[in-house]
Amino acid sequence: MTERRLSGTGVAPRSGAGTGVWYGPDAAVALGDPPDPDSVDAERERDRFEEAREVAREELRRARDRTAERLGESEAAVFDAHVQFLDDPQITEDVDAELDAGYPAEHAVRRAFDRVIEEFADLDGRMAERADDLRDVRDRLLRLLLDEERTDLAALPPGSVVLAERLTPSDTARLDPDRIAGFATVSGGPTSHAAIFARSLGLPAVVGVGEALRDVDDGAEVVVDGSEGTVVVDPAESTLEAAAADADVEVRRDPVATADGTPIEVAANAGTEADVRAAVEHGADGIGLFRTEFLFLDQSSPPTEDEQYDVYREALAAFPDGRVVVRTLDVGGDKPVDYLDRPESENPFLGERGVRRSLGPDADLFETQLRALLRAAGDADGGRLSVMVPLVSTVEEVDAATETLDSVAADLDADGVSNARPEFGVMVETPAAAFLAEDLLDRVDFLSVGTNDLAQYVMAAARGDERVAGLRDYRQPAVLRAIEATVAAAAGTDAWVGICGEMAGDPDLTPLLVGLGFDELSVSPPAVPQIKRAVAETTRSDARELARRALAAATKQEVTEILDASR
Amino acid sequence: MTERRLSGTGVAPRSGAGTGVWYGPDAAVALGDPPDPDSVDAERERDRFEEAREVAREELRRARDRTAERLGESEAAVFDAHVQFLDDPQITEDVDAELDAGYPAEHAVRRAFDRVIEEFADLDGRMAERADDLRDVRDRLLRLLLDEERTDLAALPPGSVVLAERLTPSDTARLDPDRIAGFATVSGGPTSHAAIFARSLGLPAVVGVGEALRDVDDGAEVVVDGSEGTVVVDPAESTLEAAAADADVEVRRDPVATADGTPIEVAANAGTEADVRAAVEHGADGIGLFRTEFLFLDQSSPPTEDEQYDVYREALAAFPDGRVVVRTLDVGGDKPVDYLDRPESENPFLGERGVRRSLGPDADLFETQLRALLRAAGDADGGRLSVMVPLVSTVEEVDAATETLDSVAADLDADGVSNARPEFGVMVETPAAAFLAEDLLDRVDFLSVGTNDLAQYVMAAARGDERVAGLRDYRQPAVLRAIEATVAAAAGTDAWVGICGEMAGDPDLTPLLVGLGFDELSVSPPAVPQIKRAVAETTRSDARELARRALAAATKQEVTEILDASR
Repeated sequence: MTERRLSGTGVAPRSGAGTGVWYGPDAAVALGDPPDPDSVDAERERDRFEEAREVAREELRRARDRTAERLGESEAAVFDAHVQFLDDPQITEDVDAELDAGYPAEHAVRRAFDRVIEEFADLDGRMAERADDLRDVRDRLLRLLLDEERTDLAALPPGSVVLAERLTPSDTARLDPDRIAGFATVSGGPTSHAAIFARSLGLPAVVGVGEALRDVDDGAEVVVDGSEGTVVVDPAESTLEAAAADADVEVRRDPVATADGTPIEVAANAGTEADVRAAVEHGADGIGLFRTEFLFLDQSSPPTEDEQYDVYREALAAFPDGRVVVRTLDVGGDKPVDYLDRPESENPFLGERGVRRSLGPDADLFETQLRALLRAAGDADGGRLSVMVPLVSTVEEVDAATETLDSVAADLDADGVSNARPEFGVMVETPAAAFLAEDLLDRVDFLSVGTNDLAQYVMAAARGDERVAGLRDYRQPAVLRAIEATVAAAAGTDAWVGICGEMAGDPDLTPLLVGLGFDELSVSPPAVPQIKRAVAETTRSDARELARRALAAATKQEVTEILDASR
Repeated sequence: MTERRLSGTGVAPRSGAGTGVWYGPDAAVALGDPPDPDSVDAERERDRFEEAREVAREELRRARDRTAERLGESEAAVFDAHVQFLDDPQITEDVDAELDAGYPAEHAVRRAFDRVIEEFADLDGRMAERADDLRDVRDRLLRLLLDEERTDLAALPPGSVVLAERLTPSDTARLDPDRIAGFATVSGGPTSHAAIFARSLGLPAVVGVGEALRDVDDGAEVVVDGSEGTVVVDPAESTLEAAAADADVEVRRDPVATADGTPIEVAANAGTEADVRAAVEHGADGIGLFRTEFLFLDQSSPPTEDEQYDVYREALAAFPDGRVVVRTLDVGGDKPVDYLDRPESENPFLGERGVRRSLGPDADLFETQLRALLRAAGDADGGRLSVMVPLVSTVEEVDAATETLDSVAADLDADGVSNARPEFGVMVETPAAAFLAEDLLDRVDFLSVGTNDLAQYVMAAARGDERVAGLRDYRQPAVLRAIEATVAAAAGTDAWVGICGEMAGDPDLTPLLVGLGFDELSVSPPAVPQIKRAVAETTRSDARELARRALAAATKQEVTEILDASR
């Protein structure tokens, strides 16, 4: 049998091979004709609808938290939109009317949702995507009402390659990147939720393959090549071998260096205790970004100092020879925490977020968190603790955070509580921090560049806004120059500079990042082996030349060409 | 009589002297007890309420447009919020319930609004400000219902100094800066709507004077010193003379140069044809920022090519020896235009705005506008036309805009229509544009720095968000460095660099801007004489040293001290 190659858009630069498993079709399609209205008990149907809505709400809450932990709050926000659709007064009223007319709950849901889906689908761009979100909510309700056993994405056999029309946010939240070998979809673009998910976790994926994908049989052997953007059906032995070589990257437990001997720390980003374990499994040198929001989100009250202390100590214990960089609580306009006063913002990404809250309305939480961190640093056996604060845009914020750190340390000393001063750094996420890099470096031990936020502010292009997705790109010359300004300021100082945004997880960019001068790359746990390999294959002198050329480019196109030519 | 001095926060660095006129109190206070419910005709009261609401809506629309023209769209947005309160279903329902209970319309409005005002007033920060907005809406309705003749702020005798508890957005929209000498308020801070208004128009004003202001009699002679933040009652002759010297800055019709001979163009910002006339009256050298939104806003259809042509030609005719820099249409997430498709954004300031729309969904409008501009440039008698595009963040956008310009010119030539190629430039409003300044300068004739947007993106602090107002400040070192990167890139090229944000209108900053190397300062028309004077008093070599020191400062505090020491 000859192999067949289908083309789409590759979203994570890796290959994966496995058994194709079709996922779908939409539950709504399976629904037959409605029964005679007289045979329907409207009150019972109303109860069924309300019950399904209640369960759906709970499911969405869990999907939200799961996504926040894995991908961050910005990506999780889509589930807030789903809850809003679930509770939309107009849709609810429409469902009610259909129930009054004698339709059973599942038909009422389908009729009411389909009307509004049709309205949205006729619109352009982002509004059309709302239609996809509405379908996702509709199908969730239908599945619950029909008690339908859909393929459980979380329980696929290891080595499955998921094939689907498209993957909704709800679907991706159920995907277990440690079990599946990759996925391919008929529709969807490089900025879809599924693509972001795959990229962020280094999961092989190709989207937008088109109708040809439908001809792939359930159970077929499939290779998904995210670098080339191809789906290979019935692959030849040589294709399988190449994919296996790419997929089974050796886990290196030791620190790596470039081919010409410059050591580069490859750490992992973690948002849960499970991520810390995954980081160890994949051979990370440490944790380069330990998000602490999971301790605070979805809680009725903030975690106690002791609860936090335990979590931080455990993370440190996982890396007795490494470093754990803990980011202090990063909530704001876009990150709802029930027990925090959080007034609405018209532009939440440009509002009171990160350290602005820690030095303002959340000062108490900040102090408690620092107490727990200083105590954990004092009691660590081996592993080194570092603390960094998010969204810094002035030197005064760094001075104020340092003062708080000093006063917390003094309090602990006065109380005779064991503690130690952790390494202290800031995230470079605002253009201001890049412009101030030299002054920040007078005050901190390290800088960590958060490329996701930095790109959105440099380009004035919001994360999650599809209409400006092309602008928010790490290959944009302006973004590269903002990063360069930061790294260059650290050259010749004692401070180290790391990068912990999505950009760090793309092995195609590793030579560029090494060339720019980063000391540390922090990526999602599954991406660690690939990035370690990419570091070892990089020659620093070549990388520097590559960076010099990329920084001289005026357009994203030129940068892309320079990077492609260097591969 | 000895003069009395009261202290507050000065918001526009100028003095004004005149006759104090008290404005207020709130209409709601004047309302007596409600009549017997049985004597009230509920239906008639409901009609009165609906009618008042209708008129209020129309008034708010006008206030919105007036403010958009004078202060820009961001400041005008407050009136959109007012319309929302006016139409809020909960408040409307509450008013209905009160009408049902037999209250006349004005009592129903007061009762319903006061309940929700009380709820908001109990909250912190921004939410408490919502209470002020609700009071503003309530009082507007009460004034209409009671047919109350309140002091008409638009018709005060020339030379009045307005004294008030506070000035609401609705009040400031009625203030005529050419008639009043200044204002002082009991409450309010430097970031209140009234303060922004005063600063932007160079109107002498002191806010937050406190209770002591209440003792100032109606009709008293008052000097408002916005530099010192003082209100002088019954001023001594010497105080009056000093104020007069400051207030009556000589209008200079000729271009100015620094004391050591560097010519600096002082142009005016304009958003209406009336602004163009005011610019001429105040001796502006030209128009440095001609906002064209007034042609598009509040219209049921876009202006025709000929309508635009007439407006541009008229502006050019006003400056036969000068330059008129027209900014192409700058609408986006935050700027509603009825006939444009404008999907919602969660972060409108980081969305599809400015040139992003001109090269995307509004391409037709862009072409028509360019046709009108090229024709006006071709038919100009003397005055030079320049065109600039807003919110540039990539070189590709500049190339695409240039291509459109080329094709429009070719079309006009092919049709035998008289036209000329205007000077072409871009606004530097995103950090990306500052990082790309050198590459942009390979492609344009000039750059114009829009400090309001640049500051909000560099600092990641939204305009209009009070909680981050301290970050969004021109004295922030990061903002100064972003500006410096832009101006420095132009040194030694043929391109000129201007500044047209709020920052340019503060005469205390003129030496700094001259020292940074700006060739042009564009300010609100009334501020032109002051800025021309400040330029003439500046020595460029001193200014350069001042800029050098300010750029080396790490904190806003240090920058402020350096500027204060140089005065």
